Amino acid sequence: MAYDRTENERLREVRTGSEEIFNGVVLHVQRDTVRLPNGAETIRELIRHIGAVCVIPVLENGDVIMERQYRYPLDQVILEIPAGKLDAKNEDRFSAIQRELREETGYTAGKWTVIGGFYPAPAYSDEYITMFLAQDLKKGDRHLDEDEFLDVHTVPLRSLVEDVMAGKIEDAKTQVCILKAARILGI
Amino acid sequence: MAYDRTENERLREVRTGSEEIFNGVVLHVQRDTVRLPNGAETIRELIRHIGAVCVIPVLENGDVIMERQYRYPLDQVILEIPAGKLDAKNEDRFSAIQRELREETGYTAGKWTVIGGFYPAPAYSDEYITMFLAQDLKKGDRHLDEDEFLDVHTVPLRSLVEDVMAGKIEDAKTQVCILKAARILGI
Repeated sequence: MAYDRTENERLREVRTGSEEIFNGVVLHVQRDTVRLPNGAETIRELIRHIGAVCVIPVLENGDVIMERQYRYPLDQVILEIPAGKLDAKNEDRFSAIQRELREETGYTAGKWTVIGGFYPAPAYSDEYITMFLAQDLKKGDRHLDEDEFLDVHTVPLRSLVEDVMAGKIEDAKTQVCILKAARILGI
Repeated sequence: MAYDRTENERLREVRTGSEEIFNGVVLHVQRDTVRLPNGAETIRELIRHIGAVCVIPVLENGDVIMERQYRYPLDQVILEIPAGKLDAKNEDRFSAIQRELREETGYTAGKWTVIGGFYPAPAYSDEYITMFLAQDLKKGDRHLDEDEFLDVHTVPLRSLVEDVMAGKIEDAKTQVCILKAARILGI
């Protein structure tokens, strides 16, 4: 599509004030006042997040290494691919995902591919999640963080695609990575 | 996969305390203390969100009605499908998405399909987004909210799939809906 040079100017909101609401361990919440394109003022509540990484690890036989993890805000165990927050804002995302895969599942990978990234909630959060495809996997021992409890098992990519299409997998990053990996691997 | 009856018990975290941090217009932030499966205590920071809906509207010729919208937390205009928050916790999601599509794009649809839902950030938010596919579309006038500014245009679904696979579309709901619609419509 044609690029519109004035678009950013026409749609942009300009910050006129900012108040820190909460400086937590994971969440940093702020409330800003902004001037809208029509000159009116409004409030924007938002979260600053350190960023995260996730990986879809696909074994030679087409099975994917998956996790079942309890998610406190949902009070529910859900099926997800391995993932984790960065340890520091400037942490290298490739080192971060290698660490997360090894710690959570015990696996290391010989072949890594970046398959894009996404903003989970761009209306109110600057979190950005980089997605990886890991292949050529070797099993080792896992070393979970002290406050991490999750089950690891394998599921054929083909049935994961069916589950995504049937609405049975409800985590955003897991849906995107399954559908992307399926297209890449021709499934 | 086999269902494990004791899984929820083994992985569940039990709330031992809760503190309201921020009761905003969009974001409701709380900090809970929880007892982990190993008996230790830790903190969970989380957001309560009213929930949202999104729609991929596909015209007869395979073009998708897309929006370019400025997202304040990113200070960036990004490409998204039409979407919006619920007006009330108990608002019917189907009414909500019909309203959002009409207000933001002017279109109404004769055929609606629920294509699943997802948690954008289950680690720290209970937001749930229901996804719809809209077809049999008719153009009308749009009526944006007072504080809403966005551009509407159409893009072939086929090129949107290419853009998702090339990492050029960075919104979570938009990636999921494009890949799902492409599978449903055989593209």
